[in-house]
Amino acid sequence: MRSILALVNPLRALQRGKHTFVLYGALLAYAVMGVTKIIASGGGNESGGHGTAAITFLWIAVILLAAKFSSLIERFKLPAVLGELLIGIVLGNLVLAGLHVFEPIKTDAIITFLAELGVVILLFQIGLESNIQTMRKVGLKALLVAIVGVVVPFVLGTYLVGPLLLPGLSTNAYLFLGATLTATSVGITARVFKDLGRLKSSESQIVLGAAVIDDVLGLIILAVVSAVVTKGSVDAASVSIIVLKAIGFLAGAIIIGGVLAPRLGKIFSKIHTGIGMKFTLALSFGLILAYLAQVIGLAPIVGAFAAGLVLDPVHFKDFKDPDVVDEIKEAVSSAPAELKGKITRAINHHAHRHIEEILEPVGLFLVPIFFVMTGMNVKLETLFNSQILLFAITITGVAIIGKIVAGLVAGNVNKWIVGWGMVPRGEVGLIFATIGKSLGVVNDELYSMIVIMVILTTLFTPPILTYLLNRQGHKAAGAAPTPAKAAA
Amino acid sequence: MRSILALVNPLRALQRGKHTFVLYGALLAYAVMGVTKIIASGGGNESGGHGTAAITFLWIAVILLAAKFSSLIERFKLPAVLGELLIGIVLGNLVLAGLHVFEPIKTDAIITFLAELGVVILLFQIGLESNIQTMRKVGLKALLVAIVGVVVPFVLGTYLVGPLLLPGLSTNAYLFLGATLTATSVGITARVFKDLGRLKSSESQIVLGAAVIDDVLGLIILAVVSAVVTKGSVDAASVSIIVLKAIGFLAGAIIIGGVLAPRLGKIFSKIHTGIGMKFTLALSFGLILAYLAQVIGLAPIVGAFAAGLVLDPVHFKDFKDPDVVDEIKEAVSSAPAELKGKITRAINHHAHRHIEEILEPVGLFLVPIFFVMTGMNVKLETLFNSQILLFAITITGVAIIGKIVAGLVAGNVNKWIVGWGMVPRGEVGLIFATIGKSLGVVNDELYSMIVIMVILTTLFTPPILTYLLNRQGHKAAGAAPTPAKAAA
Repeated sequence: MRSILALVNPLRALQRGKHTFVLYGALLAYAVMGVTKIIASGGGNESGGHGTAAITFLWIAVILLAAKFSSLIERFKLPAVLGELLIGIVLGNLVLAGLHVFEPIKTDAIITFLAELGVVILLFQIGLESNIQTMRKVGLKALLVAIVGVVVPFVLGTYLVGPLLLPGLSTNAYLFLGATLTATSVGITARVFKDLGRLKSSESQIVLGAAVIDDVLGLIILAVVSAVVTKGSVDAASVSIIVLKAIGFLAGAIIIGGVLAPRLGKIFSKIHTGIGMKFTLALSFGLILAYLAQVIGLAPIVGAFAAGLVLDPVHFKDFKDPDVVDEIKEAVSSAPAELKGKITRAINHHAHRHIEEILEPVGLFLVPIFFVMTGMNVKLETLFNSQILLFAITITGVAIIGKIVAGLVAGNVNKWIVGWGMVPRGEVGLIFATIGKSLGVVNDELYSMIVIMVILTTLFTPPILTYLLNRQGHKAAGAAPTPAKAAA
Repeated sequence: MRSILALVNPLRALQRGKHTFVLYGALLAYAVMGVTKIIASGGGNESGGHGTAAITFLWIAVILLAAKFSSLIERFKLPAVLGELLIGIVLGNLVLAGLHVFEPIKTDAIITFLAELGVVILLFQIGLESNIQTMRKVGLKALLVAIVGVVVPFVLGTYLVGPLLLPGLSTNAYLFLGATLTATSVGITARVFKDLGRLKSSESQIVLGAAVIDDVLGLIILAVVSAVVTKGSVDAASVSIIVLKAIGFLAGAIIIGGVLAPRLGKIFSKIHTGIGMKFTLALSFGLILAYLAQVIGLAPIVGAFAAGLVLDPVHFKDFKDPDVVDEIKEAVSSAPAELKGKITRAINHHAHRHIEEILEPVGLFLVPIFFVMTGMNVKLETLFNSQILLFAITITGVAIIGKIVAGLVAGNVNKWIVGWGMVPRGEVGLIFATIGKSLGVVNDELYSMIVIMVILTTLFTPPILTYLLNRQGHKAAGAAPTPAKAAA
């Protein structure tokens, strides 16, 4: 602390001015002015050809600050991801108000890459939070709910709503629409149950288990749909090949990874046992599997998810954070015998920092870029058409119905809670839409509709679920931080 | 823990195979095979146009794993950065052994950006570790040592060795050579003193203070040299303008930033007090200043360094990590009165996680990319020429002499320790070389020589410094983690 306090005084001297906002405004205004200057001077290579990089630095800062500002939305018990989407839509459509300054972001190749890397990191994190064990525990019920919750919306979207509402689009477009309707957002769902301290309720267990299975099924569907679109062939043979590929990849990753991860951990821990090694091993493992998925024709996120599913803290037990270990020793040494254990446990969590924790900052850096960019790609003008807006709402209805139906097969639990728990689409749905757009199958209108659907399902669920849970009333035991832990 | 243990059993079942290496080898071999496939298929757009991204994922993993593998070098009490440079040189020159697979990395635009972002993060971190207070404390002695240590090598390099050894090169090339000889690597220097538990010795204080001032002087020189090169003009007027610009920018950043940082911290902490907000504010601040530096014609790293210099944990006192706070409460509640304080202090450090700590993983992700890439750009064949090799060694000699001379003005301390403490060049020198190369001023031969000089100075210092310190003998009190803390 002393070293910190030592710094306060000189700075205090500088902190007389009472016009923070004015100054900050000036700072940003100058920055934004600079943008045009840079662009004008062709990437501003004045100082060391770092111009193009420098402008991207600004864009990253703008996106991250906007995302964080949007987290105001959590005040209304809504997930941060929703705020990031909405602020993205705002930034991306300021052009309608004649403000063109943020337009270059949309076409910045590096920002686009960082967004893609962000999704990979996100799915890796989701994979880390889920685990094979969870899926086993929740068992048949969850599997049933998951399958119905995937098949019904997919069929409704692809063969009913799509062709009826949007005649004239390609079959592929309908396929993507159907696919985007399938995947439950495990992140948002878990968040709602956690915020309400009901992660351990049987409804929550079924929903979380089903959501994880949903992710897997969704990724398989994505693999199939993508291949169908790119290869143009729809014959049962090729489809089943891709399904086998996807299942084979996941199984292979789980088995081989399960064998490798702990051994590699041991080997590399002989080189170095610091946080850095732990971090690098995990991240590289995720990136390599993302790449391998790509190589065999699956989306990189499938590989990242598989990598996360395989990795578990246990594989890294040979790594610790030296500083913290010292702290523990010190604190314990000065404690009476009967307390040593308690103190150790209290700090130990930090000594063997979980890989989730070490990856967190990288997620904080990259994941918001994906969601803000997703929002920025929404062309609001496409929604000025009241008909399209109506379609968006209809699709949302279908998305909700599909999952409510799934809730009905949940057995003797509160079917409404299970059903609504499955409603939020979020991440994976958006990823589908983005990929569909990049494949040129999903046009601007459809893309906007899908994003609206994702926003609405995410927007409605928390309040409704809160109402249902409160009505059901019985207090479930304390909240657990992640589905994985809740299941144990 | 239970949730972790619960996972061991199913995985244990899979861990019968004793052929980890074979499997891992196969995995990587498959990945590398894939590369050629991907490249052949023009970026492998089979699945969702993520092909180009996917291949970059692999490159990132390769670079990070190589960097971590290279940390074996720490066994020989040598800094990790050296290992990253050397492994980079190996990867970058495997083509000499007919292995072309890693060549695409050198030209990957995204990897190049990530390396640039890596340097910005690094200088931001160095800025965070240094602080205005440190520079004041060490005072005149350090300033003297710093100035002599910058002027002597710069003059020797620019006006003597350059023209003598490498006749026919442009004046700009000599300027860059001189510039690269100036900057002491505060990182490496601090590391050596820390490893030997001598951070608090007066020699160490002078060296660290001088190294920080060196960084500032070096960045000013870089600004001048870059401008001279790009604008082509060398008249005193324009030079002094740039010097004023650089000083003005640093001063402005420190004053305005000093006023803004704490206030912004307060404002944003009203939106959210999580680690994420703390992280985003700091990172964005660094990126915006990096961008602004670029706008006024300085290198982005100047801005990043200034940002780090300004930011201090105190500005973030309104942020804490909720989970950890809960843990503290729990641990304290169950402790006897007289121990509460001790336990709180023991964990508190984690509750108010320092910004350095939260940024660490981003550094772990990006900084090695810069150093490995720096190594990869070394064309070993340029050194097959014995004359050039001789030049490289001569330049190294000049680099060493320049700093030894600086040690002589250090007053009544062990001048040899101060002198040798200033010898390692490292980061900033490499950044100069890289920028010079990107400006087309530094050719392959000169670039290779500079990198060799950096490697040799870094390679020699630790053993020699260790010898000198042990000979000096008197045991100084315990080591402090960072120069900043050591100074407080």
